[in-house]
Amino acid sequence: MVKQERAERTRRAVLLAAAGTFADTGFESASLVDISRRAGVSKGALYFHFVSKQALADGVRAAAGREIGSAALRALRAGGPALQDLIDFTHELARLLREDVVVRAGVQLGRLGHGPRRTGPADLPDADATWRSLTAVVRRLLGRAAEAGELRPGTDRRAAAELLTTVAAGQVLLAAEDVGRLRPEAVRGIWTAVLPALVPDGRCAAYRI
Amino acid sequence: MVKQERAERTRRAVLLAAAGTFADTGFESASLVDISRRAGVSKGALYFHFVSKQALADGVRAAAGREIGSAALRALRAGGPALQDLIDFTHELARLLREDVVVRAGVQLGRLGHGPRRTGPADLPDADATWRSLTAVVRRLLGRAAEAGELRPGTDRRAAAELLTTVAAGQVLLAAEDVGRLRPEAVRGIWTAVLPALVPDGRCAAYRI
Repeated sequence: MVKQERAERTRRAVLLAAAGTFADTGFESASLVDISRRAGVSKGALYFHFVSKQALADGVRAAAGREIGSAALRALRAGGPALQDLIDFTHELARLLREDVVVRAGVQLGRLGHGPRRTGPADLPDADATWRSLTAVVRRLLGRAAEAGELRPGTDRRAAAELLTTVAAGQVLLAAEDVGRLRPEAVRGIWTAVLPALVPDGRCAAYRI
Repeated sequence: MVKQERAERTRRAVLLAAAGTFADTGFESASLVDISRRAGVSKGALYFHFVSKQALADGVRAAAGREIGSAALRALRAGGPALQDLIDFTHELARLLREDVVVRAGVQLGRLGHGPRRTGPADLPDADATWRSLTAVVRRLLGRAAEAGELRPGTDRRAAAELLTTVAAGQVLLAAEDVGRLRPEAVRGIWTAVLPALVPDGRCAAYRI
């Protein structure tokens, strides 16, 4: 049991070190030796958990996906006015991308999906599936907002959900160039521009953006 | 003179072959031998123009930047109602990304900007500069639209320009997973959701989205 715990701790340390290394130097330049050193484990211990750099990248992506999934679940359970929950969720995503190196590296690695589509392990959703599930969460919160009469009459919820997901993807891409795009003020700027399309005239002030 | 023309033709063939190879297999997997074969030139001829795979990637990115820059200039000179010119510009960008392999590969390579920032040749803008100049074009067209009374009173043009650029970046990222995101219908979906935030009530129908 203690052995299992130690193995789990080692695995987490390796993932964290891998995420930090990928984020600092990129996937191509990252070496397994650097990662094992950074994690404070032997190369043998690293190989016990991850057979290759690709397996490490998959592990980081899966961990990032779990974090984002948890944040989405929290948003769906928040129980506030639905549009406010959606706004808060976008701030939480930006915070995760700013502060959690595993999330940041995982999402950046998702962006590396060039070349022929690799068939990964069954528990590893491809990047497109992650975006689709994010769109589904956004659409569900917009659906609740519509039911509660929060939305401007005639709002195309499908189009609005696509828009908001595309904005989230854009922030991820632009954040790779300039992490300032993830500051709370930047997220507020987006909502300043989007909110008038979603709520009836004069209702923007009802939300903390 | 004829020699110079031939050299220019070879250079273009190599760039096109490189873009196709990067788009098909990704930067990492692309080999200079494959690219020279695809271009129908010797490896020596390829090296005469591009000293490394990185130089080829820089060449593709610069060419993509020039295409996007030309499209922006055309949009600024179109002289229609400014908001319509902006809508048309987003369709033109999506078309370039769909149909022009150099643009697609160049933008995808821009997304590869992981690792420490490389200092490139002076004529090669970094990806962030490209996005900033795109934001400037969008802001200028929105400024004209505001002057012409096309915009909803009180529209925050800065925030709207950031939003639209972020949406464009998001489409680029998501298109890497699913090129359907660049279809005209997808672009129309975005405008369906955004336009109500930009124009006064009832004015959406005045635009071809």
